[in-house]
Amino acid sequence: MYELLDKINSPTDLKQLSVDQLKTLSDDIRRFILDSVSKTGGHLASNLGVIEATVALHYVFNFSKDRLLWDVGHQCYAHKILTGRKADFHKLRQKDGPSGFPNPAESVYDNFMVGHAGTSVPTAIGMALGHAQLKQDEKVVALVGDASIVNGVSFEGLNNLGLVKRQLLIVLNDNSMAIDATQGSLAKYFSKIRLSQTYEDLRKTTKSILEHTPLIGKSLEGTLERIKKQLRMALPASQMFESLDIPYFGPVDGHDVASLVNLFKALGQHDHPAILHIYTKKGEGFTPAGEKPHKYHSTGPFKINGDSVEKKAAESKLTFTGAFGNSLAEIAEQNEKVVAITSAMGTGTGLDLFREKFPDRFYDVGIAESVAVDIAGGMAKCGLRPVVCIYSTFLQRAYDQIFQEVSLQNLPVVFCIDRAGLVGADGPTHHGMMDIGFLRMMPNMILLAPSDDTEMKLALEFALAQNKPVCIRYPKDNIPQDEFDRTPCRKTFDLGKSVTVRPGSEADINIVSYGPVLTEALKAAESLSEQQIEAKVINARFAAPIDESILNNTKGPIITIEDHGLDGGFGSALLETAAKMQVTRAIATLAAKREFIKHESRTSQLMHIGINADNIVRVAKEMRMQNTDSTVKRNLQ
Amino acid sequence: MYELLDKINSPTDLKQLSVDQLKTLSDDIRRFILDSVSKTGGHLASNLGVIEATVALHYVFNFSKDRLLWDVGHQCYAHKILTGRKADFHKLRQKDGPSGFPNPAESVYDNFMVGHAGTSVPTAIGMALGHAQLKQDEKVVALVGDASIVNGVSFEGLNNLGLVKRQLLIVLNDNSMAIDATQGSLAKYFSKIRLSQTYEDLRKTTKSILEHTPLIGKSLEGTLERIKKQLRMALPASQMFESLDIPYFGPVDGHDVASLVNLFKALGQHDHPAILHIYTKKGEGFTPAGEKPHKYHSTGPFKINGDSVEKKAAESKLTFTGAFGNSLAEIAEQNEKVVAITSAMGTGTGLDLFREKFPDRFYDVGIAESVAVDIAGGMAKCGLRPVVCIYSTFLQRAYDQIFQEVSLQNLPVVFCIDRAGLVGADGPTHHGMMDIGFLRMMPNMILLAPSDDTEMKLALEFALAQNKPVCIRYPKDNIPQDEFDRTPCRKTFDLGKSVTVRPGSEADINIVSYGPVLTEALKAAESLSEQQIEAKVINARFAAPIDESILNNTKGPIITIEDHGLDGGFGSALLETAAKMQVTRAIATLAAKREFIKHESRTSQLMHIGINADNIVRVAKEMRMQNTDSTVKRNLQ
Repeated sequence: MYELLDKINSPTDLKQLSVDQLKTLSDDIRRFILDSVSKTGGHLASNLGVIEATVALHYVFNFSKDRLLWDVGHQCYAHKILTGRKADFHKLRQKDGPSGFPNPAESVYDNFMVGHAGTSVPTAIGMALGHAQLKQDEKVVALVGDASIVNGVSFEGLNNLGLVKRQLLIVLNDNSMAIDATQGSLAKYFSKIRLSQTYEDLRKTTKSILEHTPLIGKSLEGTLERIKKQLRMALPASQMFESLDIPYFGPVDGHDVASLVNLFKALGQHDHPAILHIYTKKGEGFTPAGEKPHKYHSTGPFKINGDSVEKKAAESKLTFTGAFGNSLAEIAEQNEKVVAITSAMGTGTGLDLFREKFPDRFYDVGIAESVAVDIAGGMAKCGLRPVVCIYSTFLQRAYDQIFQEVSLQNLPVVFCIDRAGLVGADGPTHHGMMDIGFLRMMPNMILLAPSDDTEMKLALEFALAQNKPVCIRYPKDNIPQDEFDRTPCRKTFDLGKSVTVRPGSEADINIVSYGPVLTEALKAAESLSEQQIEAKVINARFAAPIDESILNNTKGPIITIEDHGLDGGFGSALLETAAKMQVTRAIATLAAKREFIKHESRTSQLMHIGINADNIVRVAKEMRMQNTDSTVKRNLQ
Repeated sequence: MYELLDKINSPTDLKQLSVDQLKTLSDDIRRFILDSVSKTGGHLASNLGVIEATVALHYVFNFSKDRLLWDVGHQCYAHKILTGRKADFHKLRQKDGPSGFPNPAESVYDNFMVGHAGTSVPTAIGMALGHAQLKQDEKVVALVGDASIVNGVSFEGLNNLGLVKRQLLIVLNDNSMAIDATQGSLAKYFSKIRLSQTYEDLRKTTKSILEHTPLIGKSLEGTLERIKKQLRMALPASQMFESLDIPYFGPVDGHDVASLVNLFKALGQHDHPAILHIYTKKGEGFTPAGEKPHKYHSTGPFKINGDSVEKKAAESKLTFTGAFGNSLAEIAEQNEKVVAITSAMGTGTGLDLFREKFPDRFYDVGIAESVAVDIAGGMAKCGLRPVVCIYSTFLQRAYDQIFQEVSLQNLPVVFCIDRAGLVGADGPTHHGMMDIGFLRMMPNMILLAPSDDTEMKLALEFALAQNKPVCIRYPKDNIPQDEFDRTPCRKTFDLGKSVTVRPGSEADINIVSYGPVLTEALKAAESLSEQQIEAKVINARFAAPIDESILNNTKGPIITIEDHGLDGGFGSALLETAAKMQVTRAIATLAAKREFIKHESRTSQLMHIGINADNIVRVAKEMRMQNTDSTVKRNLQ
């Protein structure tokens, strides 16, 4: 089915091919990825863009020994296909299938499991220094996109590249796109470079320079100088990198695999760090992905029809993200002080509608979570009502800014934390299992979680009425659709007050839930009721401050449930409050153990951590059994 | 005593002076700061460097309305003196005196309480956007040092400066020093600019250009262009900023107050963002501080003798920092894989000896905590044993890197966390009250805390023998000097195992301490013993994993003590373990409440949060009283 790819199962096989065959192989890989991802879903556009670069890198280097570092990592499909994971690719991002990100547990060819941007340059520096210290000559290559290079972590890395006194190659994969279009001045600068010449010119120049460059070890230094000068003459050099004293080569055509092979050979022998700027196209070779790369950034399964896609009926289920987007746009109509800030997650966090309606109140700072928060701090200080929209896992990037510019100043910034909890197919790098813990430690912060779309709007209205920072968390999931009576969840949020959704019998057992896992609590209560145990179900609403009446107004054992880690989470906060109130009652905190939870469906992951009705029922029955003694005692007092 | 300063109590007073008088005023302020800081201690060198710039800024702008943003903030003394805090300056950094950092609670002239680097640019962007959105014309000025501008947060800000379509002035205060010398390529680039001309030349050029520049509103744009061109002709322009499309002016002499006034007047009317690069000297006007700025970065009281300092006998008390430095240097002799990494805190974290002995194994990445951790991750992956030395509060900057590049990869990086807990005079921006909480949530992490110098060495030896990440925390404090028998603390660390320091009577009361607060636990036990209560005292050693035997081998109530926030802290971890083990016993967790603790002495701050022997005794007696009932019950079982 694939002329060359069928025979290639490892980089060793790849190295048997002639340079001329690499184009055919690249085309094979492109078809393979398209076919495979159309069935499994996954990251598409970015993977189609780096096929030739990946093939050329594996052709030149020996990455079972040399080090290849991916930035963000979702563009590693061709790499995985070439390094022994082709046969499993139909299970991509599924249970027991390959992860969608590099993963050292899968292959020696993967060095770091990554999913956050900007880290390849500094980890590459660390590896180059490490190998130097250990007197090893492993070559180090980092492949970083133009959206990641503008991240502060990348910049701090580039600024410290001078620490390295040996080979280290940074391949800057410039496709002018983050998930959304790359933001910021550096992006504009790159596009100025691009616009200074047509793509056709670039192709020709690259080819001519490289075809006429002899690659003989002896004259390497001279060769590099010549390449550099010729490229410079043809295209503007990057002042940016030059001012950081980093030898810069490029830009060159990133889809010209043969030329890339020549360049990598030359730069791999360079005895100090260098940047090679390659120009690629997201979605190369597949028209729909090329035209709408943000749509095919991360996609579900789709049907290919030649070079186009058969449209499926749009997903009609309302998600938490969608509910947030609708609510915010509605509230912003009434309150013109509301502005929204995101860091390259405008679409992902549901801000499309807001951006469309209020383009002047929408800010995307690119992959730069730290400054998104600081800018929000500045705005709040002036009297605006900034809403910061960042996924839970990426909010970790702004931890110190949330501390210093928001919590310490007690400024009314609202954090809307999407992808809080388990995220399914993206796996460990993308779960948001720590936000309750790391945010509730900070003074002044109010933490809350809506359980459905109605509560989402109420939560947002409440948050924007506070004169303090507020964090609202919600998962990557649909709004629950069930028949449970949620009337108590319809009333407005009252600071630090929970609502009782099912009265039950408070002496029997009490299930306290935080966020949308309320549904599982209600299911569990239903099931317990069939077994003559009437559980009281409380929707905590707030993780900070904790509602003390949860402890005051109940008598029996308590089970807390949350879609978060146990350490430092909502249950932990309730334990602290109980200790402070000197309540020594049985409290079971159901949450994720301290472990990284593999990619599979979100439902399976919730099962895995025990956040499901069956497990709640099991724990409730166990606790009731053990509690009989002490309950009797208490009732006798 | 001070010719002009005596008459100046506000920026309004300042504006009455002629430009010619500003030099005399600056000299007055310099003498005032020297005199005052020599008595109180405080940040010296950096404050002597920015006097003229501060005077000129207040002379030109109206910062009760306009916005002045400080970066890091410890250089705000002249600003404080000019904005109503002169009279209280003898209580600088002391209880009820002015804080050493900007503080909005003290004055409307302070916008953000800051102490961490790199945030002035993005907060300034936020304020400029905020004022624009609200159709207000307040001017915005950020003053940022060359050590801060290389921070990733600054860079992300600079890269997003294009969002601002109005006035915003960034004053780059270039003195070529962080606390230690500034690191990285950009620093080298700045020094290249500096070296291209002598300081005397710079002075003359600045003067001549500015004296001949008419500042008339009408021809402002022309004037700016002329200034720019003349400066450019005289000195190399900054490619770095130009590539980010930021209009760049400079460098100019930052001690020429009259010229600065002219420049600020011109740039304040600029209708888009600009950078003014000023060249200053840390410690300007005081020879010892000028010669050894790192020594006078933050200083205790000293005695001035003309333009020199009378030496005091060196402090002989061993600190935790010192004990760490000694231990690391000793261990590194035996293990050549040990390398040390810091981010501009080499001296502060006690690495002097290590640096001196092993210059090739010492890395300072400048104020760039994120990449310090990522570089360590890369090194650990290669087989080195990196030790990352960062203060607790600044480690917050690397939260996501600790998560992704260390915890997720399970790499053996050792974090040596200095300034963990309360820090005394530096106050809220510098306390380390969250590290236990934010680190123990991460899988694979081992958390431990030595109680004295012997345990410091044992902890370090243990950490470097693990195949996992380990965090060691210790405070800014002396090693305890007392007569308590600490024999049980002399044995090597055993993963997750506590040691019992005083057997006591486990049914009575149990004090479980984490870190050097052990001393207070022992004092409390002594005092309780005099009252016929025999407390068992346990040195927990580990906060992750928690030693379950603390709960298994005790019977009575437990008091946990720690120098950390209650939320998510060590006590909280013990509560989680107790809940898991279904131990429903009275546990009191003594730790700091969720509040920001003001600057005063560390001892007073520990009193304030209730971590002292008297309070432990009080709580112990209360708990014993309440526990009598249940203890009797338990003993009868």
